[in-house]
Amino acid sequence: MNANAVEQRVFNFSAGPATIPLSVLQQVQEELLCYPGAGASVMEISHRSKIFTEIAADAELTLRNLMAVPDDYAILFLQGGSALQFSMVPANLLKGTGKSASYLVTGSWSKKAIAEAKKEGEVTLGFDGSDGNFCDLPTAGSQLVSEEAAYLYYCSNETIQGVQFQSEPNCPDSVPLVCDASSDFLSRPLPIDQYGILYACAQKNAGPAGVTVVVIRKDLLERADDSLPGYLNYRNHASADSMWNTPPTFAVYMLGKIAHWLQDEIGGLKAIESLNCSKASLLYETIDSSDSFYRGHAQNDCRSKMNVTFNLPSDQLQAKFISEAASQGLDSLKGHRSVGGIRASIYNAMPLEGVTTLASFMTDFANANR
Amino acid sequence: MNANAVEQRVFNFSAGPATIPLSVLQQVQEELLCYPGAGASVMEISHRSKIFTEIAADAELTLRNLMAVPDDYAILFLQGGSALQFSMVPANLLKGTGKSASYLVTGSWSKKAIAEAKKEGEVTLGFDGSDGNFCDLPTAGSQLVSEEAAYLYYCSNETIQGVQFQSEPNCPDSVPLVCDASSDFLSRPLPIDQYGILYACAQKNAGPAGVTVVVIRKDLLERADDSLPGYLNYRNHASADSMWNTPPTFAVYMLGKIAHWLQDEIGGLKAIESLNCSKASLLYETIDSSDSFYRGHAQNDCRSKMNVTFNLPSDQLQAKFISEAASQGLDSLKGHRSVGGIRASIYNAMPLEGVTTLASFMTDFANANR
Repeated sequence: MNANAVEQRVFNFSAGPATIPLSVLQQVQEELLCYPGAGASVMEISHRSKIFTEIAADAELTLRNLMAVPDDYAILFLQGGSALQFSMVPANLLKGTGKSASYLVTGSWSKKAIAEAKKEGEVTLGFDGSDGNFCDLPTAGSQLVSEEAAYLYYCSNETIQGVQFQSEPNCPDSVPLVCDASSDFLSRPLPIDQYGILYACAQKNAGPAGVTVVVIRKDLLERADDSLPGYLNYRNHASADSMWNTPPTFAVYMLGKIAHWLQDEIGGLKAIESLNCSKASLLYETIDSSDSFYRGHAQNDCRSKMNVTFNLPSDQLQAKFISEAASQGLDSLKGHRSVGGIRASIYNAMPLEGVTTLASFMTDFANANR
Repeated sequence: MNANAVEQRVFNFSAGPATIPLSVLQQVQEELLCYPGAGASVMEISHRSKIFTEIAADAELTLRNLMAVPDDYAILFLQGGSALQFSMVPANLLKGTGKSASYLVTGSWSKKAIAEAKKEGEVTLGFDGSDGNFCDLPTAGSQLVSEEAAYLYYCSNETIQGVQFQSEPNCPDSVPLVCDASSDFLSRPLPIDQYGILYACAQKNAGPAGVTVVVIRKDLLERADDSLPGYLNYRNHASADSMWNTPPTFAVYMLGKIAHWLQDEIGGLKAIESLNCSKASLLYETIDSSDSFYRGHAQNDCRSKMNVTFNLPSDQLQAKFISEAASQGLDSLKGHRSVGGIRASIYNAMPLEGVTTLASFMTDFANANR
């Protein structure tokens, strides 16, 4: 059964939910009917059982070590995806403060976040990339937020446009920096102490859809008003070690497995960053050496190492590219329906072989269709 | 591997997350590395892919048929568990209406729900069972709500106390009836057209933790104000077929498998109800014929068919009972930490054999320790 299933697996460039390390899936498969010592699947046991609380604590600790999260930060496992975080961030940090929050609008996801923030309080635009069709980011050193702001919010990687911050935006110490890192979470080391909140839904680099990791500086837990819906109050989750209500236990279990894969098989975030740089370089070099057959969407200094977005000379060629690629086991390369074109999502779990295969295909396709 | 894992499985009386049909787990295990035709695990594919949208649509349709949900009701797959529903119900149906909602407080879960509702508007208590230590329910025919109320809310089965409504509470046609059916969802046929909203987190009878099913009469979708946090607005989810944001895809896939198990292997909700009645009767008869060695918590006419709660003559005997049962493969029988005692959760997926084994153990234990 397994050997056959492995052979049937394609190179899956889906933007999310996205590819998961094969060795992790194999462990999960092995344990699916009976988690060691539990007499039941991990899905079937109480979240308050000794076995599951150990699984959750280990997932938290492994992430904490991997990301070098300082002790004055809590790590929460929540539900509702980034969409709920779009509301939870302003509900906890903006609502009722009389302050305004600064948002950097760099693509589709930060645009959605700002729409929710406006319901909770005053919002200013520290940067608006919509005029440039979201192909660039704020220039280094530009002032993005006043010292009195409730926080500065940005999305570190925009999956749809394929633009990625190469480092943290300029932010005064007095202002909490809030980051939606959903699509480049765990792809590189980060200076966590520069952040107030860093959150990520799991389904790109960290697990199946259904769990969202929130790394939050503990002093920020005190800002929410008790009148918030209980689930939306970070403090409730932090004070109950993410067991204020039943957590998505299977997704938390998988998150732990993926954190262990990064730590034990890959060798940590510096190692995965180096792999991610190699993979992205291969594709961008293929684009840049294609004599403009492929045209990258993002400006060179904003290119994403997670989502490589580009266009072909015509819609016909794009459709042909997607279909021929699929026939060679290179799957889910169609760009997001809102922008079109091609998107190759090459998250942590995409093996180098998948990227070299795609690069070869791109070169062959350009030569045959130029 | 599998044969061994099956042998290691215990009878798991966990109150939730709870036991899942073995045949469903085996199918999931079989497909874990490669969903048929996908070239990837179901966890790894886009929620907007043709394959996953078909999986989600089939889960919805199978549930709709199983529960005989009329066309003027939407079925939503959400995240956040019952805890988020405690807030979403009043945020959508009470907030800003100037009306009050009536809550029936029959145990721990309805008590939690009312605490969240009070943040959103005015609440009255149609029934308060706290004086009776939550061992009973409103008497049939008693008036529980005024005709002008925003809605009447109740929890059909209280897992912690083990009390269950045997039929819908008295509710005028003008008032939407809202039910937290988390712990007896899919355990019996229901007259859905009597409900405004019926919701259930999946981790008792319908799947792994991380997905919540909301069955909602479509006219109620219009009541929410646009100022609500987007995720909390039922209308957003209904208008996007539960893909307003990335759904918990793996949990939805499993929900579909469990709905098929009920439909195809069990034969529908009438069949499972009959099985559930047999299982519960076995345990209650054992309690009632124990010469008061076992004392049931719930009044006879309120006894839950899902969670059988009872006490032994002393704490020492209770501890001995739990430990001896576990050594015989009867697991997770300890009552909730808030009330103590013994709780046998015998949801849909608990096989009759598990219950007969427990009943025999109970009789033997009583004889040996009387």
